[in-house]
Amino acid sequence: MRFTINREQLVKALGPVSKAVPQKVELPILANVKIELNDKGLEITGSDSNMNIRVTVPYKIGELDVIRNYQYGAVLIGSKILLEVVRRMEGEEVSFELIDGTILRLDDGRSNFKLNSISADEYPEIDLNPVGSVFSIRGDDLLALVEQTAFAASTKEARPVLAAVNLEANNNVLTATATDTARLARKRIEIDNDVHFSVNVPAKKFLDIVHSFEGAEMIEVSISDKKAQFAFNNTIISTRLTNGEYPNTRNIVPKVFNYYLHVNSKEFINAMERVSILSSDRDGVIKLLMSDESVEIISRSATMGSANEKINMYQFEGDRFEISFRASFVSDAIKALRSEDVTICFIGEMKPFVVKNQNDQTIDMLVTPLRS
Amino acid sequence: MRFTINREQLVKALGPVSKAVPQKVELPILANVKIELNDKGLEITGSDSNMNIRVTVPYKIGELDVIRNYQYGAVLIGSKILLEVVRRMEGEEVSFELIDGTILRLDDGRSNFKLNSISADEYPEIDLNPVGSVFSIRGDDLLALVEQTAFAASTKEARPVLAAVNLEANNNVLTATATDTARLARKRIEIDNDVHFSVNVPAKKFLDIVHSFEGAEMIEVSISDKKAQFAFNNTIISTRLTNGEYPNTRNIVPKVFNYYLHVNSKEFINAMERVSILSSDRDGVIKLLMSDESVEIISRSATMGSANEKINMYQFEGDRFEISFRASFVSDAIKALRSEDVTICFIGEMKPFVVKNQNDQTIDMLVTPLRS
Repeated sequence: MRFTINREQLVKALGPVSKAVPQKVELPILANVKIELNDKGLEITGSDSNMNIRVTVPYKIGELDVIRNYQYGAVLIGSKILLEVVRRMEGEEVSFELIDGTILRLDDGRSNFKLNSISADEYPEIDLNPVGSVFSIRGDDLLALVEQTAFAASTKEARPVLAAVNLEANNNVLTATATDTARLARKRIEIDNDVHFSVNVPAKKFLDIVHSFEGAEMIEVSISDKKAQFAFNNTIISTRLTNGEYPNTRNIVPKVFNYYLHVNSKEFINAMERVSILSSDRDGVIKLLMSDESVEIISRSATMGSANEKINMYQFEGDRFEISFRASFVSDAIKALRSEDVTICFIGEMKPFVVKNQNDQTIDMLVTPLRS
Repeated sequence: MRFTINREQLVKALGPVSKAVPQKVELPILANVKIELNDKGLEITGSDSNMNIRVTVPYKIGELDVIRNYQYGAVLIGSKILLEVVRRMEGEEVSFELIDGTILRLDDGRSNFKLNSISADEYPEIDLNPVGSVFSIRGDDLLALVEQTAFAASTKEARPVLAAVNLEANNNVLTATATDTARLARKRIEIDNDVHFSVNVPAKKFLDIVHSFEGAEMIEVSISDKKAQFAFNNTIISTRLTNGEYPNTRNIVPKVFNYYLHVNSKEFINAMERVSILSSDRDGVIKLLMSDESVEIISRSATMGSANEKINMYQFEGDRFEISFRASFVSDAIKALRSEDVTICFIGEMKPFVVKNQNDQTIDMLVTPLRS
């Protein structure tokens, strides 16, 4: 294997692949990336065994010869050291040459590195061909879908399926649902392809992945019963799915309410965050006290003291009513709604309540109250 | 105690005091700051028992009434919670009132906090009067003095005195010295006052402290046998000294050399940092190979491979010569010299060498070579 490559393009491609390679690897071979020069360009593949990523550096970008003076081949090389070396080099191009199949020589005309490498045959087989249901979605839409739901997934390992985002497709609608049983977030989006599936994508990984979609025009998504795969620009990312049946949450969101509180998102979030400083020793639980005359947020800590604040901008429909909940659950929900104003709809003191953006019927936000 | 205070000025004063209060306190009382309103203004005092800091918010800044509607008094209040509350408040002013000597009430016209507080009598006596030798120095000069030396202090606890910067004053010259025995950094600066002392200031604390001097016009320094104290603007900081005699390093810096290497600081540092990637498993030791024809940096790792790079901009005086050292020691020294070009002066393969800024005779940088 031999090639001369534009250093900036190589660094740009190596970044996301190296990030996917974990600091501590269970399989030592996965501390390497596989670099393979073939007819598509330089394929750089990384994996942490749950997630795989491949970025391909093409031979040409516009008029720029990105790769030249080459001979096909493949090798494994430590992900961290490769990125560090090419990042610190100063030349516009770097020449790579595999010597005796074991030494990878890097030269930018200034410095010269001979890196110990491993035969490409040692790398696990990674299949990145699209299988299962295939559909297309705008990068920004998929990013929003995940960002507006994944925060509600469980961070605990006890029930792995709750640490995932459920992705369901039916009748040209893609629905993402996340719940840790104390709250739920759901978002629907229309898609052009008539595909049918219901799978669970690990929430934390999903968030990591979708951030790389920012600005990507279209994503080709393929969903099988084993993996979800995303292809865009010169990148393919696949992640393993979480096994297990997702709880049935279809009819969980109530539709009839007894109390409605309309608030300004920013004022309400700021007040909750301030007041909940004094319940940081009780999971940030605050009490909301509503009547025609005033809306007040209250917290109390045995050790620190107490706090209260009256809301200025509000409209309340219903009789005098009070309810307690974890402040961060409601502020997370409000933030995810991305609206200047929101409406919080209550049924009763110990009944789950809904946070709504009146102008967006594609999102559901449900929060369970707590005893104060 | 009662007062109404400009919130922005209070936050500005609380920041540095809270930073000094450690996350984990041996003495629980030190998790508090003492706030005392007296004829000077609002004195906010924090301590981690090794270092004390007091920032005073004055009654007036120019035309601005910073504190008004007041009654003298003092109380202890949790440092973290006080800063968090006043930071998150939105009012221009905050009113403080001590109720029944135990509840500190904060109100900005929007939110209302009742914080549990502790009697000021419980706080340890902290004396911040200047004692011992007193002199003045420009803030930027003291910052440079510490930044250009403290990096060479030991980070190990084995010999506490080596983890300190030795500050010595004699004949209107203030000298700072730091050494971990493998390298030494020294800087001299002229002062107006004829004071005499030799004390050891913990290097890490010293670096923390001097950063708050940035931009301060003049610092009034007072040095006793127990503490070093720095007063500027509305702030006083004192730190405990490290006991023990500092090693005699007066005549340690050689003056006669056999080899001189002149290099461009930036090129040389970059080359060393690049090449030393491949000796990260050996403390970053690199070999420097010099002759009339070329100057080359070499490293080798049993596991990773090898690297070498030829320097472009150099001038070498002497016979062919090679020497090994820890790359970071030399790049730290070059950076501290703050010069575009430096000269490295060698005596022999296993003799300590000197890194020099030819235009600045106030700094000494000494590095001990290693076997490669």
